[in-house]
Amino acid sequence: MSTTSQTPKEKFEAVFPSIVDELEATLKKTNISPEAIEWYKKSLVYNSVGGKANRGLSVVDTYRLLKGKTLEELSDDEYKRAAILGWCVELLQAYFLVADDMMDQSITRRGQPCWYRVPKVGNIAINDAFMLEAAIYILLKNHFKKEAYYVDLIELFHEVTFQTELGQLLDLLTAPEDEVDLSKFSLQKHSYIVTYKTAFYSFYLPVALAMYMAGISSEQDLKQANDILIPLGEYFQIQDDYLDVYGDPAVIGKIGTDIQDNKCSWVVNTALKIVTPEQRQILDENYGRKDAEKEKVVKKLFEELNIQQLYLDYEDKIVKELREKIAKVDESRGFKGSVLEAFLNKIYKRQK
Amino acid sequence: MSTTSQTPKEKFEAVFPSIVDELEATLKKTNISPEAIEWYKKSLVYNSVGGKANRGLSVVDTYRLLKGKTLEELSDDEYKRAAILGWCVELLQAYFLVADDMMDQSITRRGQPCWYRVPKVGNIAINDAFMLEAAIYILLKNHFKKEAYYVDLIELFHEVTFQTELGQLLDLLTAPEDEVDLSKFSLQKHSYIVTYKTAFYSFYLPVALAMYMAGISSEQDLKQANDILIPLGEYFQIQDDYLDVYGDPAVIGKIGTDIQDNKCSWVVNTALKIVTPEQRQILDENYGRKDAEKEKVVKKLFEELNIQQLYLDYEDKIVKELREKIAKVDESRGFKGSVLEAFLNKIYKRQK
Repeated sequence: MSTTSQTPKEKFEAVFPSIVDELEATLKKTNISPEAIEWYKKSLVYNSVGGKANRGLSVVDTYRLLKGKTLEELSDDEYKRAAILGWCVELLQAYFLVADDMMDQSITRRGQPCWYRVPKVGNIAINDAFMLEAAIYILLKNHFKKEAYYVDLIELFHEVTFQTELGQLLDLLTAPEDEVDLSKFSLQKHSYIVTYKTAFYSFYLPVALAMYMAGISSEQDLKQANDILIPLGEYFQIQDDYLDVYGDPAVIGKIGTDIQDNKCSWVVNTALKIVTPEQRQILDENYGRKDAEKEKVVKKLFEELNIQQLYLDYEDKIVKELREKIAKVDESRGFKGSVLEAFLNKIYKRQK
Repeated sequence: MSTTSQTPKEKFEAVFPSIVDELEATLKKTNISPEAIEWYKKSLVYNSVGGKANRGLSVVDTYRLLKGKTLEELSDDEYKRAAILGWCVELLQAYFLVADDMMDQSITRRGQPCWYRVPKVGNIAINDAFMLEAAIYILLKNHFKKEAYYVDLIELFHEVTFQTELGQLLDLLTAPEDEVDLSKFSLQKHSYIVTYKTAFYSFYLPVALAMYMAGISSEQDLKQANDILIPLGEYFQIQDDYLDVYGDPAVIGKIGTDIQDNKCSWVVNTALKIVTPEQRQILDENYGRKDAEKEKVVKKLFEELNIQQLYLDYEDKIVKELREKIAKVDESRGFKGSVLEAFLNKIYKRQK
């Protein structure tokens, strides 16, 4: 069925319409009105499609690496099931993003208005977020109920969902947009927030799902994956924070706003650790203000503190550590260090 | 451990602190900040406690009826586990209410400000709602993982959650508060909304949970429960709609607002079925307006249409049907009609 002219992303996205059909069939059985069915379909497509789909693609990619196969060598059924797990991760992300955009009062997402800002949607978006999450468990039941690892998949989604919500809670409490209080910030809190809010669902979850499906999911192997993917996810987010301030907007495709938005970013936390009392006062007075002049003052201070070099030092150190850990992965039960290597290579020295 | 001076509700509520402790312990293991732990505990208590707890109590009551025991005859462990399932229903309700209040822009709930209106909460309430839902699955895992029916409990919660969200979606699309369009209303839509939004989680869910725990959960018995509890739940909600217009505010404890709030209520839907074109125009012009004079016009029309008598006729008919169905319950596998009788007796001719 697969044509070689498709990119892996196109192949993955080609599965989504069948997922929408499946969910539509579930709704139709309840005799809900056609208007409500159309609404749900629109929310599914609007909120799940249009991103980079890195997390979903990771499931498929990890699965095929664990099986030692190319994409073309997977059977249609095998590919579809791995892709469905991938779409479950994308649905989880959609659920978070719809809600996060409301909590952050964001304006656009993936180049279009945030869902809650679409005419007629508004606060209905809260219920729509719930329904995006619900889709995950409908799909798992339809496609994996017969598997011995069915409960593992459900528990994994529950656990990672809760972890992400904990990260989001700490982030919301630590860095409210309208109340700057840098005494709440610390590198330790930053580490917790990025680990819980991002690393678990973006890095560990896709790999663990693929491991269950591939039957390589002993406790030791899941721990090996976790112990490398979590610091790797933290590195990814620190890089994100760095690029927000130091990246090239022309390359990233957006202008960084972390300084004006009072974000609990690695950059400001690293600065806070080394500032003099005078420099701290400058930060207190200028960070987190919707004011381009104050942003410039902060950026100048970051330069004086040589944050850019501290980032490069951090990157060298963490990448060295991760490579050492990956080299030591015990492959005796079928797990493969190459899965982790693939993640690291995509991230290392990325410009966007 | 139980003292006879406790009411069933007091006994049930006495379990909640240990649930909060258990969830607190889960958070502490993640090394999240004490501020975030306090936040979660506050949200748990604020949003789960303080209502009538009818749904939670139903789990315990149904369980004990199925086991043929009094409350005092249940072992401490047995009672606690049934109560935990009951609290899971209350947590599900808390999750819905926090979100519904935001979507409806409600002001108070259970005599206190809605959670999102508590100072410093605001839109963080969305994430708090998610975390109330997450608590359900943490508790199920901690207390029921070893049971053969563990997956059934999880799937039941997933299914009922989705059903409730579907009901909420149809309600939001049918009766937006700011746009009156009575052509969207119908008794058929009303039936769907109340069945999905209320009956599944308030009536079927508590009974089905108790049935699983009691080991009386064959497909036939679950279907017997469902086939009576869903129309019973619909009757309950129709009664609610009726009392909103015709109940005594002094007895109910609140003044009905359905007419002004453009609610897709049984009362207006019954009127719409029998109005003349002239009466329909009166409804179109006066229903769903924040205007006491227009509300009076609508109430006068309802009187002309004799809605009150139509309700009493409906009540007689549905209660007769339900009693007949209950009398025919097949108790050969251990299920008991008395469980359903208990629900019906609590509801029949209630004034509040």
